[in-house]
Amino acid sequence: MTQHATLGVAVIGTGRMGADHVRRISEVTSGARVSAVVDIDAERAKQLAAGIAGCTAYTDPAAALAADDVDAVIVASPGPAHEAALLTAFEHDLPVLCEKPLTPDAASALRVMEAEQRLGHRRVQVGFMRRYDAEYLRLKALLDSGELGRPLMLHNRHRNADVLPYFTEQMLINDSVVHEMDVARWLLDQEITAITVMKPRPSGNAPEGLSDPQFVVFETDGGVLVDVEIYANCRFGYQVQAEAVCENGTARIGEAHGMLVNTAGRWGGSIAPDFVERFVDAYDREVQAWVDATLRGEVTGPSSWDGYAAAAVCEAGVRAQAEGRRTEVELIARPALYR
Amino acid sequence: MTQHATLGVAVIGTGRMGADHVRRISEVTSGARVSAVVDIDAERAKQLAAGIAGCTAYTDPAAALAADDVDAVIVASPGPAHEAALLTAFEHDLPVLCEKPLTPDAASALRVMEAEQRLGHRRVQVGFMRRYDAEYLRLKALLDSGELGRPLMLHNRHRNADVLPYFTEQMLINDSVVHEMDVARWLLDQEITAITVMKPRPSGNAPEGLSDPQFVVFETDGGVLVDVEIYANCRFGYQVQAEAVCENGTARIGEAHGMLVNTAGRWGGSIAPDFVERFVDAYDREVQAWVDATLRGEVTGPSSWDGYAAAAVCEAGVRAQAEGRRTEVELIARPALYR
Amino acid sequence: MTQHATLGVAVIGTGRMGADHVRRISEVTSGARVSAVVDIDAERAKQLAAGIAGCTAYTDPAAALAADDVDAVIVASPGPAHEAALLTAFEHDLPVLCEKPLTPDAASALRVMEAEQRLGHRRVQVGFMRRYDAEYLRLKALLDSGELGRPLMLHNRHRNADVLPYFTEQMLINDSVVHEMDVARWLLDQEITAITVMKPRPSGNAPEGLSDPQFVVFETDGGVLVDVEIYANCRFGYQVQAEAVCENGTARIGEAHGMLVNTAGRWGGSIAPDFVERFVDAYDREVQAWVDATLRGEVTGPSSWDGYAAAAVCEAGVRAQAEGRRTEVELIARPALYR
Amino acid sequence: MTQHATLGVAVIGTGRMGADHVRRISEVTSGARVSAVVDIDAERAKQLAAGIAGCTAYTDPAAALAADDVDAVIVASPGPAHEAALLTAFEHDLPVLCEKPLTPDAASALRVMEAEQRLGHRRVQVGFMRRYDAEYLRLKALLDSGELGRPLMLHNRHRNADVLPYFTEQMLINDSVVHEMDVARWLLDQEITAITVMKPRPSGNAPEGLSDPQFVVFETDGGVLVDVEIYANCRFGYQVQAEAVCENGTARIGEAHGMLVNTAGRWGGSIAPDFVERFVDAYDREVQAWVDATLRGEVTGPSSWDGYAAAAVCEAGVRAQAEGRRTEVELIARPALYR
Repeated sequence: MTQHATLGVAVIGTGRMGADHVRRISEVTSGARVSAVVDIDAERAKQLAAGIAGCTAYTDPAAALAADDVDAVIVASPGPAHEAALLTAFEHDLPVLCEKPLTPDAASALRVMEAEQRLGHRRVQVGFMRRYDAEYLRLKALLDSGELGRPLMLHNRHRNADVLPYFTEQMLINDSVVHEMDVARWLLDQEITAITVMKPRPSGNAPEGLSDPQFVVFETDGGVLVDVEIYANCRFGYQVQAEAVCENGTARIGEAHGMLVNTAGRWGGSIAPDFVERFVDAYDREVQAWVDATLRGEVTGPSSWDGYAAAAVCEAGVRAQAEGRRTEVELIARPALYR
Repeated sequence: MTQHATLGVAVIGTGRMGADHVRRISEVTSGARVSAVVDIDAERAKQLAAGIAGCTAYTDPAAALAADDVDAVIVASPGPAHEAALLTAFEHDLPVLCEKPLTPDAASALRVMEAEQRLGHRRVQVGFMRRYDAEYLRLKALLDSGELGRPLMLHNRHRNADVLPYFTEQMLINDSVVHEMDVARWLLDQEITAITVMKPRPSGNAPEGLSDPQFVVFETDGGVLVDVEIYANCRFGYQVQAEAVCENGTARIGEAHGMLVNTAGRWGGSIAPDFVERFVDAYDREVQAWVDATLRGEVTGPSSWDGYAAAAVCEAGVRAQAEGRRTEVELIARPALYR
Repeated sequence: MTQHATLGVAVIGTGRMGADHVRRISEVTSGARVSAVVDIDAERAKQLAAGIAGCTAYTDPAAALAADDVDAVIVASPGPAHEAALLTAFEHDLPVLCEKPLTPDAASALRVMEAEQRLGHRRVQVGFMRRYDAEYLRLKALLDSGELGRPLMLHNRHRNADVLPYFTEQMLINDSVVHEMDVARWLLDQEITAITVMKPRPSGNAPEGLSDPQFVVFETDGGVLVDVEIYANCRFGYQVQAEAVCENGTARIGEAHGMLVNTAGRWGGSIAPDFVERFVDAYDREVQAWVDATLRGEVTGPSSWDGYAAAAVCEAGVRAQAEGRRTEVELIARPALYR
Repeated sequence: MTQHATLGVAVIGTGRMGADHVRRISEVTSGARVSAVVDIDAERAKQLAAGIAGCTAYTDPAAALAADDVDAVIVASPGPAHEAALLTAFEHDLPVLCEKPLTPDAASALRVMEAEQRLGHRRVQVGFMRRYDAEYLRLKALLDSGELGRPLMLHNRHRNADVLPYFTEQMLINDSVVHEMDVARWLLDQEITAITVMKPRPSGNAPEGLSDPQFVVFETDGGVLVDVEIYANCRFGYQVQAEAVCENGTARIGEAHGMLVNTAGRWGGSIAPDFVERFVDAYDREVQAWVDATLRGEVTGPSSWDGYAAAAVCEAGVRAQAEGRRTEVELIARPALYR
């Protein structure tokens, strides 16, 4: 075997997402390898590192990011740990792929943006992977082409088979609907200015205390109405759909087509059980795009500004949800670095 | 040719809908014939009657309804003329198929209900033809079966290629969304308690002064949220879709399938140009059901109560639309005749 | 109730198809009524007639067709009885809707055509109801438009959930594939010149002695290849599909769309259990078209020639099936009456 | 940048497929890099190598395969050059991904198999990329599960927008239908025993002398009938579909779903323009699977036997096409190495 220059990646956090990124970088992505894994659970980090040639285990992110064979960072630790990890990466001027959320609230996201602005160039790609999904990309291309005229409304469905027992009402906004916030902003190239949350009588599938499903409406500064059905315990599978209604036509993505079966009085197909199956290609493409851009010396994709804007809309959304009324979103003026 | 007993029908109003009912009764429906046509335009009535054996032309509804060969009435005149026609039909105790709206407002609808209650039995079937559409019927049967659990939300799309120049913002509610009001009430077997109307920035297709499309949300007394996209100038065709989101699954109707064509880089099919093509079978089935019930001595289908409830929700809707806020619907207690 | 001129129809044969036509004429069709029912089982005829005002029961077709109140005839008796019934109808110059097959073989079909030619005008519409199916009509219109270029191939699927125990291999051709023979001839406006029947290893669902499914290929005098999958015991439902492959595109009908349901890990819809559900509208339209043409004094739809051609292709098909080789179809020159 | 062990790949042939593999190995595949490119056009090879770090250009395959930094080989030269390249690779005991066809005829394929058997272990993966397509994989999994019962028939559509002017009738079999030969063998795990080729009147799109489309039927040793519509000049796009008809159900893949657009009186989506768009993921997966297996020291995927069997069926197919009759396929007994 010959030797070849590749991007050495440190993966911080080795939970579900982090471990999946380790596998992806090792087995799927071209041009990168995992040179460091970081977890506060030293044993876990060591076990994961053991299976990868040339990979070192760390418990301290700062130590990992200082290592010679670390060229770039994936942050996949819990949200509250993101700010510290990002600031450390900035100290070493390392490119970062930061899993969403950028940080848990708008205030900390602002601090991250300020630090990045002091560096004078973008270092962060936020892990909004839907922007790398083939269907969303096709929808984006169609909207950008203007072929159907200006977008007027965006209808979204976001359905999960079920959620873990500790899932709270705020998480419906912060963990689930946050994806629609980002894709709406990205598809439309507009900011969200207000948010309303409506609640039908809860499903019998909803755990005690979780009003599930909910119906969320965003308004944008371009006058588009975006509605989102979020149903976290629908039982039948994972389904993400979007329909853009434009002046002269509509476009819809997310129908679970593929193989069509006729059997036992029914025609149809299967629904993905979870986001992993639905978005596996998007994750692969996201990470490859980040590696490719990094190797070219660029930073692309969703920025810290996108992470901040999502956090600000989430904060308004949680208030709207609690108070049962339309709530306006407040954003700072967009810094020059993110224009 | 032999002679055979058939239902003699007077058709009041010979505009687009009335003329179509004349054709339907004459050529499609089994067991009925048109024995009278009524229009204030005497010439128009005479021309129409001339083509039908045994059919008399009238300008005065009262004269037509007094005729010996009139066994039942279709009211297809403009809405403001409905109340008088219905009261006259009640005088002769004639069964009526009354095109929607029952009357133009809740107050007049109340008067019609009072008169019908004085008769002591139902005489009116209101022309909400979607209840006779094969797809809506299938959706209703599925919801009633409980197979998917309790309904939680109902998403609706209502798109017209275009509308006539005199179409007003109130007509979006009164003429278009009124159909979703009725199907929501019927599908769910619940009353609508509040209505909110939201407006994105209007389409470039919308005529000056018409904020089109709009997004309407109903709340029901069973806790279901019903949202309706109404887009009256979408250019691409006529499309009516509904998706019921239930506890354990969803069901959607209104995809314009049929013949699928592959050609010139595209797969797909055609979209109905207007409601006539989309709902022709529903109209045929509605009228046949009315004739059949009448021949059996029964009155079935949407009642005056349904006409009244639609009028009351429309009134709230028009207020909600004008004032930009959630508006509650006020209904009288449901009279015994309509339970 | 008033009296009205309607077409008095005699229905000969009151089995499944005949009884359904009695119901259809009585309850669905406009402009006709059942004035006579004929069955060799006198009791059965009497019971059926008893439920219909002005309807007389007969055991002898000749007596029925001589009655004053019989203006037209539906022949729904077993195939071997068709020739006699048709010849009797010709004696009275009565218009006939004859269920398929016209007669059981080409020789008897020729005799019927000769008798009809002696009358000097068409009297027979053969009951190939697919020509009245909305989807087949759309496909026919598209092919006739030339929009996709000249048709080159026609792929057909013909699937039954199951068949009765007495179903034979010949019936696969004579009772099932005969429909594709007729629609291919009609869609293409071409005659079938040769037929090949291929047999895969039989399904475990096939009863002993029935090689099911089979794969049939027609060649036409216009150079089109038509293939038919006939699978009579597929268990999952009734499915009839056709795809026309033209020079510049293809068009497919028969996908069982309608209501789409998401539930329990699956998206999809239901498949019609049998031909009644799939083709109910086609039967209604077929009979209405026959009544309408008759009231206008015309004879339209599939002619005796179409019945004869189907019989001739069936005969070749049964030989091809038995002998395992391509078999040519022999037709007489088309008489002037049927051009 | 750190150094990392990767598989050094020599790519022989830098035409459309070869150049695409160079790009894939360099930018998409994990764990491999291009260390050599070989083309008889020295300039072309040099230009391609210049853009890749550590890549050497060759005109002589033998020289490339002898290089120290070559660990594995992709053969993408014209078919007649495959045998020599494979034998050279065998001399160095290098794993090979050989684009289809393995060799241009059964006799040369036999020689390759004999040489590989002398090595005593498999070295060749043949480039039948459809086996790596997500939809075909799903169909294969369903058939293998037995959920729908035993397969009885397999209907295939293979449509190209157009073909290059030098495309011959034999190429319809050898270059196009060969894919269906392989997927049929793989999906069913059965050998093809006979082949029939039928020709409708050619499309006006077909160039002079090319009878296009054609309809091909395979019979298998398991009694399955496989039909293939091959239409190489359909103009509307690239479309590959397959429907397996099993005892208790059918399964279909290849509908070009994805984004659904409503516009200008039509619903539908776009059709892939060519095989690159349709099968890009399959190619990526194929090459990654080959790299992964090679790094594990294994050889998986379609074998030389599969290449030989395809060649033998093609030879029978070309005879069947020329002579217009069913032609039997002759295969040697399957050597132990390929069981």
